[in-house]
Amino acid sequence: MDKAAALERLRALDRERMYLSQAAAILQWDQETYLPPEGVEDRAEQLALLEGLAHEKLTDPQVGRLLDELDPAAAEDPAGSAAGLKAADGTFPAADGFPAGDFLRVLRRDYDRAVKLPADFVRDRARAEGLSQAAWVKARRDNDFAAFAPHLEKMVALEEKKARYWGWGAGAAGFVYDGLLDFHEPGFSAASASALFGPLGERLSLLLREIAGKTGPSQSPGTGPSASPGGPGADKTGSSSLAGPGAFLRRAYGASRQEAFCRRVLGGLGFDFNRGRLDTSAHPFTTTLGFNDARITTRYAAGDPLSALFSVIHEGGHAFYELGADPVLRSSCLAGGVSMGIHESQSRLWENVIGRGRAFWRPWFPRFKKSFPRQLEGVDFGTFYRAMNTVSPSLIRVDADELSYSLHIILRFELEQRLFDGSLRVSALPAAWNAGMKKYLGVEPANDAEGVLQDVHWSMGAFGYFPSYALGNLYGLQFWEKLNEDLPGVNAALEKEDYAPIHRWLREKIYRWGRRREPARLLEEVTGQTLSAGPFLRYLEEKYGELYGF
Amino acid sequence: MDKAAALERLRALDRERMYLSQAAAILQWDQETYLPPEGVEDRAEQLALLEGLAHEKLTDPQVGRLLDELDPAAAEDPAGSAAGLKAADGTFPAADGFPAGDFLRVLRRDYDRAVKLPADFVRDRARAEGLSQAAWVKARRDNDFAAFAPHLEKMVALEEKKARYWGWGAGAAGFVYDGLLDFHEPGFSAASASALFGPLGERLSLLLREIAGKTGPSQSPGTGPSASPGGPGADKTGSSSLAGPGAFLRRAYGASRQEAFCRRVLGGLGFDFNRGRLDTSAHPFTTTLGFNDARITTRYAAGDPLSALFSVIHEGGHAFYELGADPVLRSSCLAGGVSMGIHESQSRLWENVIGRGRAFWRPWFPRFKKSFPRQLEGVDFGTFYRAMNTVSPSLIRVDADELSYSLHIILRFELEQRLFDGSLRVSALPAAWNAGMKKYLGVEPANDAEGVLQDVHWSMGAFGYFPSYALGNLYGLQFWEKLNEDLPGVNAALEKEDYAPIHRWLREKIYRWGRRREPARLLEEVTGQTLSAGPFLRYLEEKYGELYGF
Repeated sequence: MDKAAALERLRALDRERMYLSQAAAILQWDQETYLPPEGVEDRAEQLALLEGLAHEKLTDPQVGRLLDELDPAAAEDPAGSAAGLKAADGTFPAADGFPAGDFLRVLRRDYDRAVKLPADFVRDRARAEGLSQAAWVKARRDNDFAAFAPHLEKMVALEEKKARYWGWGAGAAGFVYDGLLDFHEPGFSAASASALFGPLGERLSLLLREIAGKTGPSQSPGTGPSASPGGPGADKTGSSSLAGPGAFLRRAYGASRQEAFCRRVLGGLGFDFNRGRLDTSAHPFTTTLGFNDARITTRYAAGDPLSALFSVIHEGGHAFYELGADPVLRSSCLAGGVSMGIHESQSRLWENVIGRGRAFWRPWFPRFKKSFPRQLEGVDFGTFYRAMNTVSPSLIRVDADELSYSLHIILRFELEQRLFDGSLRVSALPAAWNAGMKKYLGVEPANDAEGVLQDVHWSMGAFGYFPSYALGNLYGLQFWEKLNEDLPGVNAALEKEDYAPIHRWLREKIYRWGRRREPARLLEEVTGQTLSAGPFLRYLEEKYGELYGF
Repeated sequence: MDKAAALERLRALDRERMYLSQAAAILQWDQETYLPPEGVEDRAEQLALLEGLAHEKLTDPQVGRLLDELDPAAAEDPAGSAAGLKAADGTFPAADGFPAGDFLRVLRRDYDRAVKLPADFVRDRARAEGLSQAAWVKARRDNDFAAFAPHLEKMVALEEKKARYWGWGAGAAGFVYDGLLDFHEPGFSAASASALFGPLGERLSLLLREIAGKTGPSQSPGTGPSASPGGPGADKTGSSSLAGPGAFLRRAYGASRQEAFCRRVLGGLGFDFNRGRLDTSAHPFTTTLGFNDARITTRYAAGDPLSALFSVIHEGGHAFYELGADPVLRSSCLAGGVSMGIHESQSRLWENVIGRGRAFWRPWFPRFKKSFPRQLEGVDFGTFYRAMNTVSPSLIRVDADELSYSLHIILRFELEQRLFDGSLRVSALPAAWNAGMKKYLGVEPANDAEGVLQDVHWSMGAFGYFPSYALGNLYGLQFWEKLNEDLPGVNAALEKEDYAPIHRWLREKIYRWGRRREPARLLEEVTGQTLSAGPFLRYLEEKYGELYGF
């Protein structure tokens, strides 16, 4: 076979795998949204079958042979090292503008990952995960960590085994965790995480303590007079007293009005309903079912209207990324997000930096008030803005404010690292958790259900996943600083609801690349910098310094 | 492999095929209901892949070998004749109560059908069908039969080829059409169709002419005084004059109220929303996505509230059948309806015999009126009942009343038969159509768009499919007569909204069998009779005789 024909064949195989994965994603989406309750059993069988077929397609020996044939450098280096793969990047002639070099590199990565895991390991792990998740549900309900501990030990052992299959941890045990981090965030390691998260954690804790000394954003001194929305000076936070700050955000907000408002905001932000959907599910998520089909979900809580709205903006950010890939990447393994961290940078940029900002709310607050006139009676812009950005360290990660959120993640990172380097046993995890909460957030859970048992991730063996949430904040603000340099009028544009320049910039710099550029390279190409917490900290200090007056 | 192990293996292969078919059906359902407009292209690729995989599973040579091993009688008879297959029926030991004999017979039928068609024929036919359907859309829009004729000729030729692959038509040309009929209705032939449809067509035409002599059901003499709903004597049709009969059914009925009413009726009839759904699509349909997941759709027309409602009851009948199979048949080729005709017997029984009947509407009419008080102001039960059952021969099949509907089908059957026995050329089809309409219904289309071009079926090569609609009416009334013998109080039960005895009877006699009993046998086991138009005619004569006074 000549090279062009071999490439076509490989692309066809890859395409079939993508279609099968998308088909599985469609079944999954339906399961979370519209499946009749009694349909779950058959659905599990249908999904297992499709996922198995997608795995078979990826690990088809033909794929390996074609990869070797097309990418001699990688073939000569059986470990598929970065050096061997890099040689192929961009050097291969692309017929229709398709980036064949990147394709071979990324597909090689997927293929190697998949074939290195023996089928019986995959099966055993799937079974253990099912049992572990069920045990976690029960343990959290019963506040019984001891009952969950053996499952957690098993999942740690299995993930260690997985990382070793992939080739990590041959030497020092610490490197095993690198393998898990690299899976979610290509090129990321425990060493780079420590170097970043250590100082970040300290600085955030300090900020938190400083804020805790204040009584609340509404009563902080020196923030100027209260002002009506849109009027001059409205950018300054007011001094109007707020009996029970944010109490108006806990009133009853009807679900259908919430949904209508969410749709309006999502559409206003530029979400194309011809290429996606918004539906309801128990937990918000985004899924990509085709090149022109990205769907997001949320759920509506009567006493918390901003929860649905911010989750919609968050998931919308994921969807913008997915829908922004270069059309030439369509239906290939190169379409889609390059990493969890870059994905979170987009969702958090839209949700927090834009969505919880003053400029964004300037045009939207009057409409929000119009949608909920009773609930927001007498609430002015400044009061609303402050209530939305109240900092209050608490026990539960998913409820955390923008400032303390990363501390929840840093704690989890440290614990994960210690579980895998052998310095922390599962039985000692609850105590370590509580101590960490005290150290970073100044609060301590009364029991394990609201402590170490709160997240589902570990029960599924998803170690190395949490750090991407914090990475998303860092990447996001690095991108945002650069975007503000390139587009100095961003806040004015936001006040005029002109999101087009932001979309253009993000698409050009990030979205269109899909999985072609690994996170570190993408970041450097866009910002000229390496990963750093500086921009994120500057952003927090400016925003909360003004709100809390320090 | 011993027999038990071979059977298990064959069941596993069959199950995988069923799951793949269900997965394809889920993608199809999503396409018709929730797919974002720009998602269609990728969806076509995903579907083609899944359907191809399901076909591969069915035609896996392993399936053939296992069938031969397990069913020596059929193996010795390579044509897989009825005699050879019958020997296996029920003679094989069933481990868990699973009817192995029936399974081997039905799977053999599916397998033979599939392997007899060469892959390149299937591909060519799929391509031709796509072109033909597109040409039909254009031809109907432009009222240009000549532009569509070459495609129709091609589809006739391809279907003839298909029937010959299956083994029909070795001798006389007429038998080719038998192959197509047998595909939709196992065991049915052109000869049996002619014997039934000939006299039925004559009798229905006569009835229609008799009714055409009357001015309308509301003004027919001798039907007693008008009565208010639910009161004594309300069973009699009234004599209240009706300026523009049924005009109140063409007023504006809001879609969301229509939907709410449809849901209420569907649930009231016993549809289990834990095992199915009702959604909206361009054309109503039912699809089965798992043993506990049957979904129906409809669409709401403001000026025709009964259109959505009757389509919901119709599709609900299909869903009851699908959901009623014996659990032991779950995820096997034996679950699901045995034929198009038996399926239509269930949908038409619920839609027409029950849903357009007096007893059914006794409790539902007051609620319908309550849902649409403005639109139905001053309309009494009798007036409503008569409007709903107005007979009026018209050009379009899908709009036809219960009495003239079968005539539309009989015409199509006759034309199909002649296309395949060579006595009618495609070019002569429009003239033959118009003459047939005149003969059977006394109306003639002004153009081909509202004549021979009105249905999509032929453009897709679906010949032999139409007769199942008329068969459904016949089977349905044969079942209904027997049901009334077994359950004498059915009308009283309907008036009390007690549908349980009907469901119990249908499940016991029909639903639970799935594909185990072929139509003729099923009919005989239930009614002790062979296929006949008698019960259907008796039903129409009684119902419309009373309405129109003849």
